[in-house]
Amino acid sequence: MSALPLRPELVGLKPYGAPQLDVAVRLNTNENSYPPPEPVVAAMEKALSGVLRELNRYPDRDAVALREDLAAYLGHGLTVANTWAANGSNEVQQQLLQAFGGPGRTALGFTPSYSMHPLLCAGTGTEWIAARRGADFDLTPQDAVAQVREHDPDLVFLCSPNNPTGTALPLDVVRAVAAEARGMVIVDEAYAEFARPGVPSALSVLPGHERLVVTRTMSKAFGFAGGRLGYLAADPAVVDAVLLVRLPYHLSMLTQAAARAALGQAAALLSTVDAIKAQRDRIVAELRAMGLTVADSDANFVLFGRFDDQAAVWKALLDKGVLIRDVGLAGWLRVTAGDPRETDAFLTAMREVL
Amino acid sequence: MSALPLRPELVGLKPYGAPQLDVAVRLNTNENSYPPPEPVVAAMEKALSGVLRELNRYPDRDAVALREDLAAYLGHGLTVANTWAANGSNEVQQQLLQAFGGPGRTALGFTPSYSMHPLLCAGTGTEWIAARRGADFDLTPQDAVAQVREHDPDLVFLCSPNNPTGTALPLDVVRAVAAEARGMVIVDEAYAEFARPGVPSALSVLPGHERLVVTRTMSKAFGFAGGRLGYLAADPAVVDAVLLVRLPYHLSMLTQAAARAALGQAAALLSTVDAIKAQRDRIVAELRAMGLTVADSDANFVLFGRFDDQAAVWKALLDKGVLIRDVGLAGWLRVTAGDPRETDAFLTAMREVL
Repeated sequence: MSALPLRPELVGLKPYGAPQLDVAVRLNTNENSYPPPEPVVAAMEKALSGVLRELNRYPDRDAVALREDLAAYLGHGLTVANTWAANGSNEVQQQLLQAFGGPGRTALGFTPSYSMHPLLCAGTGTEWIAARRGADFDLTPQDAVAQVREHDPDLVFLCSPNNPTGTALPLDVVRAVAAEARGMVIVDEAYAEFARPGVPSALSVLPGHERLVVTRTMSKAFGFAGGRLGYLAADPAVVDAVLLVRLPYHLSMLTQAAARAALGQAAALLSTVDAIKAQRDRIVAELRAMGLTVADSDANFVLFGRFDDQAAVWKALLDKGVLIRDVGLAGWLRVTAGDPRETDAFLTAMREVL
Repeated sequence: MSALPLRPELVGLKPYGAPQLDVAVRLNTNENSYPPPEPVVAAMEKALSGVLRELNRYPDRDAVALREDLAAYLGHGLTVANTWAANGSNEVQQQLLQAFGGPGRTALGFTPSYSMHPLLCAGTGTEWIAARRGADFDLTPQDAVAQVREHDPDLVFLCSPNNPTGTALPLDVVRAVAAEARGMVIVDEAYAEFARPGVPSALSVLPGHERLVVTRTMSKAFGFAGGRLGYLAADPAVVDAVLLVRLPYHLSMLTQAAARAALGQAAALLSTVDAIKAQRDRIVAELRAMGLTVADSDANFVLFGRFDDQAAVWKALLDKGVLIRDVGLAGWLRVTAGDPRETDAFLTAMREVL
């Protein structure tokens, strides 16, 4: 590759992504461990068959029907004009950066947070500013506002529940940042459906905040990671802006049809959420019982530590057939909450490793 | 939208895309008019059903099996290491611009050409340079090299067959530009399968040219526009570079499965190509017989003129239920070659309008 005129900031980088290893217990990418139930499979098969005979035509460029379904799922009085969808929330956020970030502009996030945010910035020429969380990965309104004021970014990423730490942000942080920031504020709520009781979504803060955007995904709670469907909710003006940078026909007929079928079966798909939360809470409790430090989790994963050498613990677990994630946070590891059998395997392996 | 901090160069733009109108005869987006044959539908149904029960898992991030199939389809000794795929060739080209273009870099194309090239540049912060074709939309090696030398761009787009003019480039233009350019050279061959006999693909020029990239799509010849599958062939180092900027899991399981099924039925799908070429040649001949000027076409569309007011002709055809494309080229219109019934409708309407 050295002979190619690659952009200088890319030279020496490695492609992003967790190792895709063939291991019995894969708890490294926060997938939903439950396959779609048979009625959902049947609904998707029917929906897909319904579009295959027109696959020679381009899809609805604006994915209107799908966006209507997404708005209905979200509630909060949202309509098709408030929503936008793309191939994963990564693509949604990339489009937001193309419209509101880019060369000469900055985006700020409170680290540790979702590791794709700085990569999306690099891919769009947006300068990344790594702001800080507190010692326990917490973020107070005062601390958040002070750092936004200091750096005056064009975009702010909030991640709630935060990946990889797992804890949701109080809404007063969202409100305070939205009030202080002069630019766009993106709340990445990929894991919102897994929040503990009483933890609200930033969707409730949208009214009156034209520069606030909530991004979501069907990869996690809906168990639709293989289908790739991310979306956003925001003021209609934000959707109009994204339309200026989206690739035409970016979302295939297959994706639109399958996602609509899945949304039509939301109750059946989301029935896995409570089961996963139960495993999540069990992992938190049992790891704490082992004497480990564990972050509160509103997600389908748990961050735990502290280890002198987290890479060695990661490798020891892999040797026992359990793949979790070393997110590059010294002393900490992240494990996905899966089904009871996977939790058993992970906890057993952990006890052996400790 | 005016209250939002949109990037200044986007202010006042309209979203890209032809009008999606509900008209009986749609010959405006160079779709393949033939729906997938039933055996192909059955193969895709089977392939999709095969992945739906694992949709809770992320897709193969590197789409290895699909890329193997694409390499086998292309031939020319290409392997998985030479190929890359994304959601349409637009996304492939966007990734190439992210890796090799971007802020502070330039891309040159020979206009009139595919109107997405400058938009992809805008979306990636790449400066667009509109070089020129000759009076008959031709491009000689001397003229191409002189303009590349003058502007010294970081990327050169060649489009062959060229959209919207329809004519393929002689390979000596590709060779001359590849020899002269210091940066990447992207040959957009979206319509390659429709070329007239004896018109070669730039794939044959790839060996020894590490900075040369050929992009293709399944939207046209394969009738897979709704499935969204674009791809490239190049030196393995180019693929390694694109991996640094691609969004992880950008290509869904559904897309990968359906595209592989379609490639497995390539003979059945590509059987429409000859029928479309026959209609294309009929349109060229009959429009010339009407006294119009018509560009030679190696594609599934025909550029014709000249009109004092092409927008008025476009509107008159639409009023007769035939939707073609005003590509914004003064005096010219573009029509897609569809099935015989669509050709009949278009030619009848044209005679009435003239």
